[in-house]
Amino acid sequence: MSNIKKIAVLTSGGDAPGMNAGIRAVVRAGIYNNLEVFGVRRGYDGLVNGEIIPMDAKSVANIIQRGGTILKTARSEAFKTIEGRKQAYENLRSHGIDAMVVIGGDGTFTGASKFIEEFDFPIIGLPGTIDNDLAGTDFTIGYDTAINTVIQAVDKIRDTAESHDRLFVIEVMGRDSGLIAVRSGISTGAEAVLVPEFEVDYDAIMKRLDKSRKNKSSRIIIVAEGDKEGGMVVSEKIKENFPHYDVRLSILGHIQRGGSPTCMDRVLASRLGVASVEALLQGRRGEMAGLICSEVRFTPFKSAIKHNVKMNEDLLRIIEILSL
Amino acid sequence: MSNIKKIAVLTSGGDAPGMNAGIRAVVRAGIYNNLEVFGVRRGYDGLVNGEIIPMDAKSVANIIQRGGTILKTARSEAFKTIEGRKQAYENLRSHGIDAMVVIGGDGTFTGASKFIEEFDFPIIGLPGTIDNDLAGTDFTIGYDTAINTVIQAVDKIRDTAESHDRLFVIEVMGRDSGLIAVRSGISTGAEAVLVPEFEVDYDAIMKRLDKSRKNKSSRIIIVAEGDKEGGMVVSEKIKENFPHYDVRLSILGHIQRGGSPTCMDRVLASRLGVASVEALLQGRRGEMAGLICSEVRFTPFKSAIKHNVKMNEDLLRIIEILSL
Amino acid sequence: MSNIKKIAVLTSGGDAPGMNAGIRAVVRAGIYNNLEVFGVRRGYDGLVNGEIIPMDAKSVANIIQRGGTILKTARSEAFKTIEGRKQAYENLRSHGIDAMVVIGGDGTFTGASKFIEEFDFPIIGLPGTIDNDLAGTDFTIGYDTAINTVIQAVDKIRDTAESHDRLFVIEVMGRDSGLIAVRSGISTGAEAVLVPEFEVDYDAIMKRLDKSRKNKSSRIIIVAEGDKEGGMVVSEKIKENFPHYDVRLSILGHIQRGGSPTCMDRVLASRLGVASVEALLQGRRGEMAGLICSEVRFTPFKSAIKHNVKMNEDLLRIIEILSL
Amino acid sequence: MSNIKKIAVLTSGGDAPGMNAGIRAVVRAGIYNNLEVFGVRRGYDGLVNGEIIPMDAKSVANIIQRGGTILKTARSEAFKTIEGRKQAYENLRSHGIDAMVVIGGDGTFTGASKFIEEFDFPIIGLPGTIDNDLAGTDFTIGYDTAINTVIQAVDKIRDTAESHDRLFVIEVMGRDSGLIAVRSGISTGAEAVLVPEFEVDYDAIMKRLDKSRKNKSSRIIIVAEGDKEGGMVVSEKIKENFPHYDVRLSILGHIQRGGSPTCMDRVLASRLGVASVEALLQGRRGEMAGLICSEVRFTPFKSAIKHNVKMNEDLLRIIEILSL
Repeated sequence: MSNIKKIAVLTSGGDAPGMNAGIRAVVRAGIYNNLEVFGVRRGYDGLVNGEIIPMDAKSVANIIQRGGTILKTARSEAFKTIEGRKQAYENLRSHGIDAMVVIGGDGTFTGASKFIEEFDFPIIGLPGTIDNDLAGTDFTIGYDTAINTVIQAVDKIRDTAESHDRLFVIEVMGRDSGLIAVRSGISTGAEAVLVPEFEVDYDAIMKRLDKSRKNKSSRIIIVAEGDKEGGMVVSEKIKENFPHYDVRLSILGHIQRGGSPTCMDRVLASRLGVASVEALLQGRRGEMAGLICSEVRFTPFKSAIKHNVKMNEDLLRIIEILSL
Repeated sequence: MSNIKKIAVLTSGGDAPGMNAGIRAVVRAGIYNNLEVFGVRRGYDGLVNGEIIPMDAKSVANIIQRGGTILKTARSEAFKTIEGRKQAYENLRSHGIDAMVVIGGDGTFTGASKFIEEFDFPIIGLPGTIDNDLAGTDFTIGYDTAINTVIQAVDKIRDTAESHDRLFVIEVMGRDSGLIAVRSGISTGAEAVLVPEFEVDYDAIMKRLDKSRKNKSSRIIIVAEGDKEGGMVVSEKIKENFPHYDVRLSILGHIQRGGSPTCMDRVLASRLGVASVEALLQGRRGEMAGLICSEVRFTPFKSAIKHNVKMNEDLLRIIEILSL
Repeated sequence: MSNIKKIAVLTSGGDAPGMNAGIRAVVRAGIYNNLEVFGVRRGYDGLVNGEIIPMDAKSVANIIQRGGTILKTARSEAFKTIEGRKQAYENLRSHGIDAMVVIGGDGTFTGASKFIEEFDFPIIGLPGTIDNDLAGTDFTIGYDTAINTVIQAVDKIRDTAESHDRLFVIEVMGRDSGLIAVRSGISTGAEAVLVPEFEVDYDAIMKRLDKSRKNKSSRIIIVAEGDKEGGMVVSEKIKENFPHYDVRLSILGHIQRGGSPTCMDRVLASRLGVASVEALLQGRRGEMAGLICSEVRFTPFKSAIKHNVKMNEDLLRIIEILSL
Repeated sequence: MSNIKKIAVLTSGGDAPGMNAGIRAVVRAGIYNNLEVFGVRRGYDGLVNGEIIPMDAKSVANIIQRGGTILKTARSEAFKTIEGRKQAYENLRSHGIDAMVVIGGDGTFTGASKFIEEFDFPIIGLPGTIDNDLAGTDFTIGYDTAINTVIQAVDKIRDTAESHDRLFVIEVMGRDSGLIAVRSGISTGAEAVLVPEFEVDYDAIMKRLDKSRKNKSSRIIIVAEGDKEGGMVVSEKIKENFPHYDVRLSILGHIQRGGSPTCMDRVLASRLGVASVEALLQGRRGEMAGLICSEVRFTPFKSAIKHNVKMNEDLLRIIEILSL
């Protein structure tokens, strides 16, 4: 039998669609297991400031389809200090909270790791980030929604690109990783995809575009924001060096963070939310719940962080084959 | 009885969702009235270059829901010269084409006016532009789709703005007019809307925002691209002068031109497309078909052009009242 | 100067997308004009039962984009009795409420008319119904969203109809009116539209379909639910009499009532919501606020009700021309 | 080195979103590998009738985002006879076609198996069905799009259910399987899900609903069409036995087959399309290409067919926990 009676849940770092589904699952799985559940507003910052509120089944009704996070999220400087974390711990204890679920990414789990070490406090993490840059889960909560938002935007841009015979450079999110770029590139029939993981060979790309000239009137080049050059520079370089293309730039920006989550993100967040509560009750801590090959798996925070993720190079090969 | 036996249709200027519905309506209304119908590719440029193709009922099947224009569109330098227009006329005559429907905006109608004068050639125009900046019609083809694209994007941004308590400056299309900005501003509960038609009073705006601070955690300021300062400058100024806001900028860009047209744009384009063919058969020319108070009306090209459009100031008043 | 200090707002009858935008506009325009504003839950039923709650600017934050109605809605038997209405009046007076805005359709305005007569109580109505079956406004709140929901559904069905060379009979809402059917029919390139306003001539329709056989592989027939026969009977009759068609039936049902409102519905509800409050302050009562030719206009409840609406027959003509 | 020089591709059975992405991938991967590629229209029926057309890179341009299948699909009686298959084989040989990729489900692979045995003809299959009822792949092409279509429809119905405090019974596709029902049920916060795999215990379900009465005003029950009773019977039974619920029925129907494919379905179809061509060149045949744990895997047709798929019971458990 677990000694845990009261748990808290918070969202931290950049927001991602599906976080609300995760919160809902944690709250209801907690209640289902006869726990008292609290929500922490504004991530670790709210933990330091004592923004802790009781949650019941109704407080998470009708939110599974909403983007954003009803608990709000933030990046916290205070929690990076020992004083901040101490205050956070005291706030948790003053509510009698025994354990916590944190939904976020890299920074969220790094903070949680330190907190567990210092205060011997049980925490389980859920992977909530649109970037899909965590090891220990095939997909992070929010990624599937983000790439669908991207392809719907690119489909619209394709309409106008086709009408005007234009080449569009489209910058998508992904500061450290090309995972959003690659999947959205395949899905939109992009002629090329530039990612942080590899160097750009403009001549090779333009040669490929020229080769397919008779098949296509429009061209789409997807650039991850973390690419060495970024969308702006790429579009300028193409304009200069390949003046026969009518080039336009579009930076998709923050629309990629919002919107009603897809079915996959809702199911993922729901399953992992339930699993995180059950894991706490089984005595687990310091681990991220993830879905690997359709099964729930737990990975230590240290192994989950982003530099452990590899780009699937086969996806880049697919883009080249299909951009004929 | 009309002497017209063969007509052509083209799209010109910036593309707009619903142009395909317009093309389809012209082609089928032509065939319904026992005319032969031709499509001209790439607008006036294609007219000069002789890119003229026969259209039948099947050639426009299953396009009413598609964004962009299957005939493609362009801005033509050649058609601005008398030699170009002469060549265009000869191309029309060589196909035996008696009359033409042109779908576009300001520049399209200016070119058509000149062409009619010089060659005594019957042309009717359809208002196809996302900007809604033509007199003689309550709405232009593409405007309703564009503002719906904008509000879906802003709704997504609102999710992330709410999650992080941020202020977003969002730049929308409208080089000469704030009509996209104003309607999308009302529809998304924007806290302020900046348009080319009026000067910005930052202090008044920020005072208004501060007043509503307790009601809201996020703020949206919509800026028309034609605003004297534009989204970039506006966001920088706010960052400098009101540092307690966490400001982000998003430029929506070309997604506003694409996408499957809304019901309103499809109906509008279908009605005006039929009307334009019937007008040609009744001997009309040099006029734009528009919808005013749900009825088809014709307006001379010279009166339709954009500087005749007024901003409905009552809509700005609504924004102020509702941004409490 | 008006003596009105406190107003209430309710939604009644079938729900419609945009009702929330209407509620928000009434609440905020009330506060802007220094009024106290109350919300009544569950329409007239809640009025009889005293479900009256105070509303502030924050209580309507972030709802403009939500379908349904946060105040809920109902059809009330109690309010049809004099005892019920008396109780409703006493509930209003006990809160000191001086005037009311009701958002709904036919039945809503009929009830309001009676209430005004009996208790000399100022009420203004907003047209909130997906059916567009009210005189005194070009469009009702919810109609534009509903027809866009319909065309998005029919576009999906067209995909599968095309893939299988099928004829689909699709039943859409509209118990007394074919207005949803007609616009969605034009917008989806439907081959025929059956509406309550006219008799069905199957042979004529099938002849038309056969004529266009070479242009099309799929066929869509839109049937308004209020059509004498309805979708089920129509599809059975076609199966029997025209066995060379592979017929399927789809009844779109309640999806037509929900969803995030379109830009047009949000703007419409926002403008009329503000106008309704201003009208009450100017001493108006017993009228519906509507938008006619882009201007706000007021129509007595008795003239607004649905049997005064005419079908625009020109739209039916368009369908025939374009179904080539 | 492979002897294969010419390949064909067809789609068969019920259509599914992403089939076009699959066709495109097969065609372009074929050309990339210096093969000639043919398309067969209308599935096996077209094969018997000789509807075989040459495909080039351009013929599949701009289709990745389209629902349905440009090659059309059908269920074929002729191909079930030995004469039909013989004719099909002769048609393939007369074009010099050496190998084939078939996109479809159960029936498609059963037919392919027989054809391979009889004519020693290399065929690889792609799993194209919205039902996800094939072993050998985590997901079938079309499933992700279908469940997203379902949840968007149910989200809309939830709006109106909430506004009226109603219980909706919603029937979704799935003749032999509850896989669409279960995932869409989790994603929409459905209060219960009825599937063919398990018996319905009405009393247990209604008890659960009653328990959560204070948290919720609306209820959603998802019923797979293959459930022993189906949506119609379920809704009638609830109306009779639990008269305090205001029950409505909605049968989602054919909208579930159409629409622009999701990112996941486009990537899946693209990867498997490329893989199927490469498999043929490596001498594989009689297998279905699938994605298992993010890797391409091949499964013999006999093992892939639907009765080998198990329902993940953990997902049903999740629904119960979260329907609090």
